Amino acid sequence: MIVILKNDVQREKRDQLIEWLKEQGLGIHISEGEYQTVLGLIGDTGNVDMELIESLSIVDSVKRVSESFKCCNRKFHPEDTVVEVGDVKIGSGHFAMIAGPCSVESEEQIVAVAKAVKASGANMLRGGAFKPRTSPYDFQGLKATGIELLKLAKAETGLPIVTEIMSVNHLPLFEDVDVIQVGARNMQNFELLRALGKIDKPILLKRGLASTLKELLMSAEYIMAGGNDRIILCERGIRTFGDYTRNTLDLAAVPMLHELTHLPVIVDPSHATGIARLVRPMALAAAACGADGLIIEVHNDPMKALCDGAQSLRPEDYDALAKDVFGIREVSLG
Amino acid sequence: MIVILKNDVQREKRDQLIEWLKEQGLGIHISEGEYQTVLGLIGDTGNVDMELIESLSIVDSVKRVSESFKCCNRKFHPEDTVVEVGDVKIGSGHFAMIAGPCSVESEEQIVAVAKAVKASGANMLRGGAFKPRTSPYDFQGLKATGIELLKLAKAETGLPIVTEIMSVNHLPLFEDVDVIQVGARNMQNFELLRALGKIDKPILLKRGLASTLKELLMSAEYIMAGGNDRIILCERGIRTFGDYTRNTLDLAAVPMLHELTHLPVIVDPSHATGIARLVRPMALAAAACGADGLIIEVHNDPMKALCDGAQSLRPEDYDALAKDVFGIREVSLG
Amino acid sequence: MIVILKNDVQREKRDQLIEWLKEQGLGIHISEGEYQTVLGLIGDTGNVDMELIESLSIVDSVKRVSESFKCCNRKFHPEDTVVEVGDVKIGSGHFAMIAGPCSVESEEQIVAVAKAVKASGANMLRGGAFKPRTSPYDFQGLKATGIELLKLAKAETGLPIVTEIMSVNHLPLFEDVDVIQVGARNMQNFELLRALGKIDKPILLKRGLASTLKELLMSAEYIMAGGNDRIILCERGIRTFGDYTRNTLDLAAVPMLHELTHLPVIVDPSHATGIARLVRPMALAAAACGADGLIIEVHNDPMKALCDGAQSLRPEDYDALAKDVFGIREVSLG
Amino acid sequence: MIVILKNDVQREKRDQLIEWLKEQGLGIHISEGEYQTVLGLIGDTGNVDMELIESLSIVDSVKRVSESFKCCNRKFHPEDTVVEVGDVKIGSGHFAMIAGPCSVESEEQIVAVAKAVKASGANMLRGGAFKPRTSPYDFQGLKATGIELLKLAKAETGLPIVTEIMSVNHLPLFEDVDVIQVGARNMQNFELLRALGKIDKPILLKRGLASTLKELLMSAEYIMAGGNDRIILCERGIRTFGDYTRNTLDLAAVPMLHELTHLPVIVDPSHATGIARLVRPMALAAAACGADGLIIEVHNDPMKALCDGAQSLRPEDYDALAKDVFGIREVSLG
Repeated sequence: MIVILKNDVQREKRDQLIEWLKEQGLGIHISEGEYQTVLGLIGDTGNVDMELIESLSIVDSVKRVSESFKCCNRKFHPEDTVVEVGDVKIGSGHFAMIAGPCSVESEEQIVAVAKAVKASGANMLRGGAFKPRTSPYDFQGLKATGIELLKLAKAETGLPIVTEIMSVNHLPLFEDVDVIQVGARNMQNFELLRALGKIDKPILLKRGLASTLKELLMSAEYIMAGGNDRIILCERGIRTFGDYTRNTLDLAAVPMLHELTHLPVIVDPSHATGIARLVRPMALAAAACGADGLIIEVHNDPMKALCDGAQSLRPEDYDALAKDVFGIREVSLG
Repeated sequence: MIVILKNDVQREKRDQLIEWLKEQGLGIHISEGEYQTVLGLIGDTGNVDMELIESLSIVDSVKRVSESFKCCNRKFHPEDTVVEVGDVKIGSGHFAMIAGPCSVESEEQIVAVAKAVKASGANMLRGGAFKPRTSPYDFQGLKATGIELLKLAKAETGLPIVTEIMSVNHLPLFEDVDVIQVGARNMQNFELLRALGKIDKPILLKRGLASTLKELLMSAEYIMAGGNDRIILCERGIRTFGDYTRNTLDLAAVPMLHELTHLPVIVDPSHATGIARLVRPMALAAAACGADGLIIEVHNDPMKALCDGAQSLRPEDYDALAKDVFGIREVSLG
Repeated sequence: MIVILKNDVQREKRDQLIEWLKEQGLGIHISEGEYQTVLGLIGDTGNVDMELIESLSIVDSVKRVSESFKCCNRKFHPEDTVVEVGDVKIGSGHFAMIAGPCSVESEEQIVAVAKAVKASGANMLRGGAFKPRTSPYDFQGLKATGIELLKLAKAETGLPIVTEIMSVNHLPLFEDVDVIQVGARNMQNFELLRALGKIDKPILLKRGLASTLKELLMSAEYIMAGGNDRIILCERGIRTFGDYTRNTLDLAAVPMLHELTHLPVIVDPSHATGIARLVRPMALAAAACGADGLIIEVHNDPMKALCDGAQSLRPEDYDALAKDVFGIREVSLG
Repeated sequence: MIVILKNDVQREKRDQLIEWLKEQGLGIHISEGEYQTVLGLIGDTGNVDMELIESLSIVDSVKRVSESFKCCNRKFHPEDTVVEVGDVKIGSGHFAMIAGPCSVESEEQIVAVAKAVKASGANMLRGGAFKPRTSPYDFQGLKATGIELLKLAKAETGLPIVTEIMSVNHLPLFEDVDVIQVGARNMQNFELLRALGKIDKPILLKRGLASTLKELLMSAEYIMAGGNDRIILCERGIRTFGDYTRNTLDLAAVPMLHELTHLPVIVDPSHATGIARLVRPMALAAAACGADGLIIEVHNDPMKALCDGAQSLRPEDYDALAKDVFGIREVSLG
């Protein structure tokens, strides 16, 4: 750790700080430059409260040199992680095409959508059973029944199923779920993350609306620190001043995450934009910049298809999109 | 609910939409203006998916006329709510001075701080036992032991205690806690909110880093819908492009929330800014714009006081601040 | 224009508002719904101050039905605009490959880069002569000399030249410039926009760091209202809480702008990310989601190429990128 | 300047960088820590392109030790600057009460408002003559005529006048204006700033919607570098995801700017919120956290007062507010 002092520090205050750091059991290497002093902290700095030191009036800034995330860090694990879900692989050239309805509504619906997306090349089925809703008065999903219906759809099509968890206490219901999704609002529900670190199942971890990439990686680290390293990261839009889409899809996060971590990174263009007409261009863009997969909402309800407007794609649009995604990947992977 | 159609809508698509809305059991009032058509939806629109309709290509926008939050809405409950915590009242002219250390560290520490802040006029004691930390490798709090220490400090001083909960499963440990805090990261942990709606204890609900006021109120609504209406809202800074403070304290939220809801609204200048030097001016500003209380970090560790830098105030600074807060309130309340 | 009143409006205040609106020469159509009242304003609402009405305490919201931008609106001009720059066309399937150094430094440099990018398929040359810099102490560009050097490079290669203007008063120096660029910081320098509306030259208008799409279009409208309709819009990243790239590239703006306007839309991945390693993936993504062109920084200075880090690409990397951009376009245009 | 290298840098690349830095005429002090290497750059680093170095793949980060802003930096000028406008002083305990209508509309209007606000304690008159408007079709102000009317109001009341400039070319019209305002949209119109550095008149510089404090100070530096050090800074809200006020008023900027610079800092609660009901609480909060003045919109048009809604205050509300502002200042200045 490096502590950079301000220009005009009184020697007395500087010495007090050094004394205090030594009391924490650290060795201190003092480098006095023409304009400033840098303290190099030597030893186990894991317990040093960086924020506390940074807030001292004589300190300009603090930099942790040894990375704070270890398990998911590409530096310590240079090869891409490939997450396996049954026969399906994700990462390092293997592409996840996850598709399905926003909410599971009925056996008829989920089976029909599952068959349709499988025919278009999807290799996993998504569908909401537990739905996080801003309002307590909105539909909260079919819950346990929804998971049962997903299992029926899996039985019919063979597609592994992905669905969101909202509470540690629901874990027993997820025994037959293939991939457990942690939604954006729960990205820093640390108790949930810790519990998911103890199970042997892939986790789809969505980036929070206001989360930096480092925070996303630290949340992955919570899961990995428990022993579960089968994590798929997902960019799904951040909250900005922008007002024409639901969120702002931050696609540069994809190549940047690939630099920082060995975990696969997929993109959710449906929730990021909230507008079906934008799903196709954003899905193609995600494929072009190196995403390891796409999670896309597809429905089969002709009413919702009215005026081609809803956030979900119709099966025929998904079919056309899937073909072009594969074409784009061929070019961008060169 | 009002659905405003785009200018150039084909009659056929418009009729399809009206047909579909009628199938949902709604009456439709069509108002054709010179430039546009507005559909007024009559009947129970509670189950209508506003986002779905808004995303239709022929729809310009949708407005829900009847408010989506009811319990916490000032329209339906014009008088200020006064939350009682033992003998302490918050709201409608009653001011909460909540103070204490970031983390509970030892009996000596928490008792000393409790005595100091009480002497300065604080009427509640805060202290972190379960600490949400971005990194799994950082100190996570003393947990159950921390709560025991808070209870000792309460026994010594009589101050009611406020501490943060991170999981539904920890609720039994909070039996003797006076006010349960929901942190910014858990503001949309809906399972937790729902559980807190079932208990008979005041809840201090902090605004999420990227939450709108409406989302904060909908989270309060989750708790109130369960029967618990003893909620204290807390503005603690939002995430913006700003880089000189940890977050951007959005003080205009205080008078705006007072318009929207009858619940008391307090401010946390310590976490909002992350800089002790800014706690005083921001606390005074919060008092000036009508906040119903302040939650402020105070420590008694001379090492942390080094160079007056940390986020926490020293007891003597808190003492001076508290006096001026009361002075400001006299002026601003007129 | 539609004025939506709040639920609980007193009849007297409502009537006062209606009276006042009539005094402005407007016809008023009152539609009383079960829950709310909507006023339809009929007549010339161009001079009605929407913000004033919106801020009235009895008003819930106001919607302008007739669009506030006309010249650049696709509704009134459904076909794509093709901007011609000499023999080069941009828009409606014609793709702009604009490349060149951040700053023009010397004849040798600009000619070498121009030749290199032309060989790789670029059809326009960019280079900064007047440089907007946050600090008055930083290099401000070669100014008039820089423009002369760009003209030499054009003479050598035939590539039309694109460079940024910072003041109305510099216009005479831009006589031989082919495309005048308005930078993000000047997007709402309305006096400059107005002056550019009077000239007969294409304008490359960059989106401001905190500008909505509507504001960008209104700035284009300033130019078009003066008679100049040869405008190329450019997405170059917005300012968000994100901290790993210089700005957040908002690629969904590309298809959204294509819906809203007939003007061509290009993307600047170099300034958006500030990191050369991210230019390639973001350029491919931009091509995949339908951008009409790319403006990319390329340099030929081996020192700056050191460790392949700077924001600018080396000519050989640009060459490889250009090939793949064309490949992506073939797939995404289907 | 300090250059912090990444952990795992190859010696060869490190040496290349050092070589290149030396070629720029710098001395290099190498400090090899246990985990990282820090290069201290010695000599004139003013021309070193920090962004270029930061973007190199072997570099972790760069810190400029000597400050990049000099004239406005409190380090080099510890005493508060007091800006004098005729007999009025601003800064270091002197408080500016600037009030007046959004736009100058008529002699009758501006004189009436001037008299009213003077009676309530205002010591300067504001009024828009040149109005920056998002749309080219909106009212652009009375321009030169507006300035003449302001001068009449000054003649009647003795209040110095403050009005906004939009172009260097309008400067001759501002000869009798006492304080020239640079609006948020022009905060980085560097050509305008440079021109204002050459004149002998106080400048009211508003913070841009997406500007950091450092960028605001660098814009002040543009003016001061030209020789004009009579600058008043103004916080007027930043653009965030927040949607209930026009902008998010960032009041912590006030005490933070006071740390960073000796220039006075005032607050504009009218434009920040866009809602008259919030002007009072935010003005009191600004006074409480140490602002050196307030610029507030006041009108005398009973129509606009309709339902007490518009952004502007009525004279009687301004009068009540002014009294409480003075009361708050007494407490907070202690």
